[in-house]
Amino acid sequence: MPLDLNSDLGEGFGPWTMGDDAAMLDIVTSANIACGFHAGDPSIMRRICALAVEKGVRIGAHVGYRDLAGFGRRDIAMDPAELRDEVLYQIGSLDAFAKAAGDRVRYVKPHGALYHSASRDRRFADAVLGALADYDPGLALLGPAGSELAHAAAAAVRFVGEGFADRAYTPSGTLAARGLPGAVLHTDEAVAQAVSIAVSGKARAVDGSGEVAVQAASICVHGDTPAAVEMARRIRSSLDEAGVPVAPFC
Amino acid sequence: MPLDLNSDLGEGFGPWTMGDDAAMLDIVTSANIACGFHAGDPSIMRRICALAVEKGVRIGAHVGYRDLAGFGRRDIAMDPAELRDEVLYQIGSLDAFAKAAGDRVRYVKPHGALYHSASRDRRFADAVLGALADYDPGLALLGPAGSELAHAAAAAVRFVGEGFADRAYTPSGTLAARGLPGAVLHTDEAVAQAVSIAVSGKARAVDGSGEVAVQAASICVHGDTPAAVEMARRIRSSLDEAGVPVAPFC
Amino acid sequence: MPLDLNSDLGEGFGPWTMGDDAAMLDIVTSANIACGFHAGDPSIMRRICALAVEKGVRIGAHVGYRDLAGFGRRDIAMDPAELRDEVLYQIGSLDAFAKAAGDRVRYVKPHGALYHSASRDRRFADAVLGALADYDPGLALLGPAGSELAHAAAAAVRFVGEGFADRAYTPSGTLAARGLPGAVLHTDEAVAQAVSIAVSGKARAVDGSGEVAVQAASICVHGDTPAAVEMARRIRSSLDEAGVPVAPFC
Amino acid sequence: MPLDLNSDLGEGFGPWTMGDDAAMLDIVTSANIACGFHAGDPSIMRRICALAVEKGVRIGAHVGYRDLAGFGRRDIAMDPAELRDEVLYQIGSLDAFAKAAGDRVRYVKPHGALYHSASRDRRFADAVLGALADYDPGLALLGPAGSELAHAAAAAVRFVGEGFADRAYTPSGTLAARGLPGAVLHTDEAVAQAVSIAVSGKARAVDGSGEVAVQAASICVHGDTPAAVEMARRIRSSLDEAGVPVAPFC
Repeated sequence: MPLDLNSDLGEGFGPWTMGDDAAMLDIVTSANIACGFHAGDPSIMRRICALAVEKGVRIGAHVGYRDLAGFGRRDIAMDPAELRDEVLYQIGSLDAFAKAAGDRVRYVKPHGALYHSASRDRRFADAVLGALADYDPGLALLGPAGSELAHAAAAAVRFVGEGFADRAYTPSGTLAARGLPGAVLHTDEAVAQAVSIAVSGKARAVDGSGEVAVQAASICVHGDTPAAVEMARRIRSSLDEAGVPVAPFC
Repeated sequence: MPLDLNSDLGEGFGPWTMGDDAAMLDIVTSANIACGFHAGDPSIMRRICALAVEKGVRIGAHVGYRDLAGFGRRDIAMDPAELRDEVLYQIGSLDAFAKAAGDRVRYVKPHGALYHSASRDRRFADAVLGALADYDPGLALLGPAGSELAHAAAAAVRFVGEGFADRAYTPSGTLAARGLPGAVLHTDEAVAQAVSIAVSGKARAVDGSGEVAVQAASICVHGDTPAAVEMARRIRSSLDEAGVPVAPFC
Repeated sequence: MPLDLNSDLGEGFGPWTMGDDAAMLDIVTSANIACGFHAGDPSIMRRICALAVEKGVRIGAHVGYRDLAGFGRRDIAMDPAELRDEVLYQIGSLDAFAKAAGDRVRYVKPHGALYHSASRDRRFADAVLGALADYDPGLALLGPAGSELAHAAAAAVRFVGEGFADRAYTPSGTLAARGLPGAVLHTDEAVAQAVSIAVSGKARAVDGSGEVAVQAASICVHGDTPAAVEMARRIRSSLDEAGVPVAPFC
Repeated sequence: MPLDLNSDLGEGFGPWTMGDDAAMLDIVTSANIACGFHAGDPSIMRRICALAVEKGVRIGAHVGYRDLAGFGRRDIAMDPAELRDEVLYQIGSLDAFAKAAGDRVRYVKPHGALYHSASRDRRFADAVLGALADYDPGLALLGPAGSELAHAAAAAVRFVGEGFADRAYTPSGTLAARGLPGAVLHTDEAVAQAVSIAVSGKARAVDGSGEVAVQAASICVHGDTPAAVEMARRIRSSLDEAGVPVAPFC
């Protein structure tokens, strides 16, 4: 089974930039592209879609809460019906640029606070799924395995579970909370964890109790700092060296 | 030749409403639906698209400058390339709701200050055309006959000229400036002008010098006040009485 | 003790209007003026401040979450330190228009979801209080008696408790939830409740179990519909008839 | 006469940063702080105001068009009365943070497209002046000498002319258009020009025709890149070496 590498891209806005999108598009196989609600603007969306198509990277709609000031990282107690509308709006807007670049949006991934709320609250998961199905039930949904997003998708659309290279897992297979000791992995550990997830479907538990199963057809890597880009590059080359085929999931 | 009636709809935002969209959708055959930049939000877009499809009204993307505070009525000295991106974004977002309602966006009409700037400045007209063609060259473009929008469309996409029922024309066929005496027609005059444009392709010039040719396959009617809705209703019934078939242009 | 009447005003934005602000300014003694985050824009703020000063109505900063699309009615899980900054920003912006009109902001009242979150969560109450004190500890704070806002204000600033004319109270003195039967009072009941709160400091409990104490130096009345304006007018005249002096609390 | 150094600061927004504000606050004597319309948010405004006060740097309101996406660099054809309201709003909001930091806004400087439109169009200059006077006629106005801003200020408020270190001047004393050869000066030239303006009130004309008078009580330096910060640092130390006292103009 090939492994996909995904990353959050196009997260600038107007005069402001974030991360090195061009470098990351040489590393990953799927690009979660911001759609203007938590980040991203039309000109950035066009540019990243064009670059992604040029490099054979798949385009996914990285949908978030309408909250530029908070970068989509703050929970907003939205009505799920309104959320469904806001997600649909974002998918459609990004697909316009994907089309202009000669491809299509292939999948949807929630961003930030929406990623978490839709992972644990079925009403929010259903809202995201509803929007996806409104637009095109052939789109895949990318998110954490075992989450409400996965459950909501079950019958209706293809769900792709993702793992994290640089975040430690608890013995029960969830991410260790960011504040805990050992929760964020250094580059060497992250590279090793990515290869382990790819080769054996396992990661070491943060408490040293042994290994834990991590079902992931895609691994999320970051590109918001030069160090993050370097980590992503090492993960990619280590996977290549380990003989893991790296390819888009769709 | 049938005549189309178009109107600007979905111009609320969040808690705020504007006009009687439901009433207008019983009168017109084409709905210019705001896409969130000068007005409109995702939930309004969904509701108006669903209603339009239910009533057999065609859906058009009413694209404008990103300026909620100014309702898209203020010129913004944008780079045409950025404008093209902003227009493409809006078309894609509305098409998502048109799809969800079981139809598609059929045409594009610029709004407010963009209507005027794209009518007189070829670079802005080309930006709107570029976005339309990026998305789907099969979309029609609705705007004033003889404008730069018409010229830009000429070779590439179907252009549909529109006339106005309640605005007087100068002897040269342009709209009389709003501030001038007689520029805004009362209901009886507007109804008569709509029928005259439909039946004979002519309107009376504002200076009393005679008749002027008005090439219009569609007439724009307003719905932002109860009086405007009533005028639109009378225009529609007078066209019916005059035996003018009223039907969408696409 | 005189009674104050307060109302939420200036809640339009750009092309959109809400309520009849001019009519309400003839009825109330304190105007909670939106500051551009949940509603309101600079030109509206100038106009309402000028009208308020002309009519001797006190100016209060109606501060809310930065959420025009949701009208400030959705909880946003903000960091309290950021919330303090956002509230301070709003107070300062409104005070500029109050100054231009020849007066000053006299008090602060949280709006919508912030009203509720700051009433029940001390961290949010402290954030509002912190902003108020940053600006001018001489400002009063208007909110529900017995709330966390009242507790937070206790030592530091003057707190003014408000009651509601058209909302029923539970036997414990809190507002009956909107969805419950009898929770929203009709005009005659609302007028009677306003007079009862003013004259005896009591309201009838929604469950018919008797009377409940309502500590209120101000009563909040609405003006967002013609019926609401009429209710506010009747409340004002009934207070006058009952010999209750109606005057600003500051 | 001491010379002031001013710089545009606080130009991040939400998750996005721009320039090295802390470094620049060690170099300049006046900080033009963005007020949330073209850049800046409440938390940034609080932080920069606090730092400025700590370092003895004067706080100025850097007011711009409401256009985050365009960074205030695009002309918006606003009604001057609305512009006056938008500028007043910004001054008030920043002054709240200046107060919280223990100081006050001391001056106003228009940003970007507004800097240019208010410099050449008296109606826009009057709008900026009107807002300044609404708030506090004791505030100074910072802008280009000889501009409509200067003329508008003449009778009413203190005007402070600024010069540019890294932009060449035409023989008539205006800035050479950015696109022209030689219009943007390299570090050595910029340092020399700053000292020349400070010591002799003169700069070399871009066409080599000789020297041109530049009336400037303040010089604007940039801090948006590490190279810009380094240039600003060298300008400051060269002024010190040349015996030019560097101090705030107010």
